[in-house]
Amino acid sequence: MGQNEMLEQYKTKFAEHVKVLQDEISDELKDIDSSLELNQDIWERKDYEGNPGGGGITRAFTGDIIENAGVNTSLVHGAVSESFAKQIGGTDNTMWATGISLIIHPRNPRVPTSHANFRMIQAGEKYWFGGGADLTPFYPHEEDMRYFHQVWKDACEPYGHYAEWKKKCDEYFVNHHRNSEMRGIGGIFYDHYNSGDLESDFNMVVDISKHFLKSYIPIVKKRMNEEYTPEDEDFQLHRRGRYVEFNLLHDRGTHFGLKSNGRTDSILISLPARCKFSYAYRPNEGSVHEKMMENYYPKDW
Amino acid sequence: MGQNEMLEQYKTKFAEHVKVLQDEISDELKDIDSSLELNQDIWERKDYEGNPGGGGITRAFTGDIIENAGVNTSLVHGAVSESFAKQIGGTDNTMWATGISLIIHPRNPRVPTSHANFRMIQAGEKYWFGGGADLTPFYPHEEDMRYFHQVWKDACEPYGHYAEWKKKCDEYFVNHHRNSEMRGIGGIFYDHYNSGDLESDFNMVVDISKHFLKSYIPIVKKRMNEEYTPEDEDFQLHRRGRYVEFNLLHDRGTHFGLKSNGRTDSILISLPARCKFSYAYRPNEGSVHEKMMENYYPKDW
Repeated sequence: MGQNEMLEQYKTKFAEHVKVLQDEISDELKDIDSSLELNQDIWERKDYEGNPGGGGITRAFTGDIIENAGVNTSLVHGAVSESFAKQIGGTDNTMWATGISLIIHPRNPRVPTSHANFRMIQAGEKYWFGGGADLTPFYPHEEDMRYFHQVWKDACEPYGHYAEWKKKCDEYFVNHHRNSEMRGIGGIFYDHYNSGDLESDFNMVVDISKHFLKSYIPIVKKRMNEEYTPEDEDFQLHRRGRYVEFNLLHDRGTHFGLKSNGRTDSILISLPARCKFSYAYRPNEGSVHEKMMENYYPKDW
Repeated sequence: MGQNEMLEQYKTKFAEHVKVLQDEISDELKDIDSSLELNQDIWERKDYEGNPGGGGITRAFTGDIIENAGVNTSLVHGAVSESFAKQIGGTDNTMWATGISLIIHPRNPRVPTSHANFRMIQAGEKYWFGGGADLTPFYPHEEDMRYFHQVWKDACEPYGHYAEWKKKCDEYFVNHHRNSEMRGIGGIFYDHYNSGDLESDFNMVVDISKHFLKSYIPIVKKRMNEEYTPEDEDFQLHRRGRYVEFNLLHDRGTHFGLKSNGRTDSILISLPARCKFSYAYRPNEGSVHEKMMENYYPKDW
């Protein structure tokens, strides 16, 4: 089998994989929250030259336990503008990309928000993998935070990537305009990954991506019925405000999507249902929330 | 009197003017809302070389009628980076700027949000004026919207600038990623204004800036006790979400401030206390809010 043929085969396999993952994660959310309502949109797009350019499946969820969530996949391809081709480092004016992107904002502030993304991209002759997963807790449940990091350590360490990808995540999800405070407690992040061995890269990324449910769902189940205070919620809503600040001011994926004429509703599904902004917001002195703030900086878990 | 001396004199006068305006607007807000609490911060900054570079007076208000508001002035000066000097079109690596920037988010969705800004900038040998005022109503009180635009028309037409500045405003406050929907209904917007006659430019800008209270306060007084429905509030909170999207994704002033290492809390005072984001949000069919949406596009009032 030629190299091109093999690449095509793995592209198809990765596109299938993210859809399976989308179903698995959707099912798991429905299991957790029987009130969950699904708003699914299957959309198509045109490429830069107006030809059919693929599309996606957007699943927006709202419920009592999961206040809002998005579990999206897309497979897009076709012509891109020259400037866009340059930006993504392509060798011609075409691109192909598939991936899953998900965000889960639970209502209870004792349950963390989580985000993950796994994608495969081809631009001209180059291709690579990118993605990651990160957690945004609002309450210092030390064991939950350690657990999340441990799952991703176990997932990535066999491939020798944990330390690097953990660091990249700490460096990526940062509100530079807020004293370099992170939006959450990090996780893993990688981009432009291509070791030269497609089969092994594919297997690794598929394997790692399967850890999302394990990293997050047990935390949701453990905390979703935990009682919380109005102060917990107030802190959560303000931190969600910082989440919005990060996604709109700094997130490359959001800017990339909006600038490449992506589907706005699918991209901004990442924003929390409710949030708060207060001038010079700080949690109360001596509160558990003030203590929580210490976790929003790189830390060896 | 030499040209330089005259410029220095008008810079001082403009800095004084914006502080008077700050007091007048603050007083008016306190008159309207007796519950209003003020959180004032007087801050200083260093310039690019670490020397004293001026500062500002930030006034953050929260109350029952005015949910949150910011009425800020600043006077900053000193060395800037070469890239920043280029960006603002300066002739050397220094800048000087003073201005007032204000945002008022009333709680009652029948009362519009409003924003205004009046500034004078010097970069090397060049100086200019910039600013404007715009309204973001959430309910189609036709007479209020017409009134706001009429005041600014009356303010700017004597100087021959209304049509141009109204159009600039329609073009500026646009959520390009939301089908070019505006964040509100516009008003006026101008930048890099310098006719060559400093005295006349100064007098004009001061005169125009004095129209803010007249353009907005009568609307607040007329509507602040109007009863509203939960649907009105839901629409308002979602439109506030779009306000956040504009300010963080598109607003040049916000990006300029954050990138020039401005005071984050003072810059992001523009964000509303509470807001909502829902996937593919649309107001109910046939509702008054759906009708309101038609006003978020350029229109001859």
